[in-house]
Amino acid sequence: MKNKIVTISREFGSGGRTVGKLVAQKLGIPCYDQELIEKLAEESGFTHEYVQEHSEYTPHSSWLSNVFSGRTINGVSNQDYLWIIQRKIILDIAAKGPCVIVGRCADYILRDTEDLLTVFIHASMQSRAERIVKVYGETENSPEKRLKDKDKRRTAYYEFYTDMQWGKVQNYHVALDSGVIGIEKCADIIVDLYKQLPQEQQPSADDKPTTSKK
Amino acid sequence: MKNKIVTISREFGSGGRTVGKLVAQKLGIPCYDQELIEKLAEESGFTHEYVQEHSEYTPHSSWLSNVFSGRTINGVSNQDYLWIIQRKIILDIAAKGPCVIVGRCADYILRDTEDLLTVFIHASMQSRAERIVKVYGETENSPEKRLKDKDKRRTAYYEFYTDMQWGKVQNYHVALDSGVIGIEKCADIIVDLYKQLPQEQQPSADDKPTTSKK
Repeated sequence: MKNKIVTISREFGSGGRTVGKLVAQKLGIPCYDQELIEKLAEESGFTHEYVQEHSEYTPHSSWLSNVFSGRTINGVSNQDYLWIIQRKIILDIAAKGPCVIVGRCADYILRDTEDLLTVFIHASMQSRAERIVKVYGETENSPEKRLKDKDKRRTAYYEFYTDMQWGKVQNYHVALDSGVIGIEKCADIIVDLYKQLPQEQQPSADDKPTTSKK
Repeated sequence: MKNKIVTISREFGSGGRTVGKLVAQKLGIPCYDQELIEKLAEESGFTHEYVQEHSEYTPHSSWLSNVFSGRTINGVSNQDYLWIIQRKIILDIAAKGPCVIVGRCADYILRDTEDLLTVFIHASMQSRAERIVKVYGETENSPEKRLKDKDKRRTAYYEFYTDMQWGKVQNYHVALDSGVIGIEKCADIIVDLYKQLPQEQQPSADDKPTTSKK
């Protein structure tokens, strides 16, 4: 295999970032998460905070009002401008060598890449709410409300730029519920798969048809 | 843990049945697949073939034409009648002891069961088409056409009776692409998770917030 890449898509509060870090540590390869934000800020000229908020989420204001606002560069909206740079950065990173890339539609941007393992990490609303309170120091009265807002805006961003459905099981090689399976165990499963892939499926003769043909 | 149950939802041609059998063999617990068909036929009085076709798929004729056709028992459509018996059989099986149950909306029927591991096995259209030709002895010119028909009717059946979305990643604890991961490896991952669950998620202090609160 050449450059084996792991992309980790994740629900906000599911611990997907931590899973990505653990996988990279266990495999001894780079994990790109905050590093992507820094590269984006550097190449785009936007602040770290602006890139953080606009490189993965639709803005709170309506999408159209953003697209058609005066905030454009050479006629391209700021968010489209960030997307173009982000896509280039992710393709460059993947070409350099094996790595883990967290979020930012890397699964879509690298969909034609050889030796790609696409992962989706999710958890129940209750599990994620408890997590952002315990780990993120969430102080809002309703963490569920914040999670729903994050889910809605991240989904809208992903589906706008990829034209794919966020969280559709067929889009990922492996999808894990971190609230039930545990962060460490999720990482172990991904590391194990990374080491063994690619693997040919061996059809089994005992898997006979069970339905009459129509 | 009490009765640990594994439910395996699967795309037609993904090898999910074989994964279920392997998991049950490795764990030394029963796997209910064809056994469900036989119990359903026995308790409903329908033929094995009729139950096979109508216990997991909407009919080729339109759903409404089936519901309002004269084919009813005490005013209940045949398919609703089968669903009622199927639900009872699955609840009885789960109450008896640990087991693997393949398909038939068991993930939904047992959703409130303690110690449930819900699995979804899928694969690309190309991988499934190759599989039904190699393993199932598929002889049609277009296995893709048959797969699409199966997908459409199984999805419609699931969503009609469960009011849940088929293949929505959040509905399953683990979802695996058997075409990429391999049948044997899928089974090993599920067996490993079965043995280790339940497992508490341990929040990690290094998973700091990366987005400004709104």
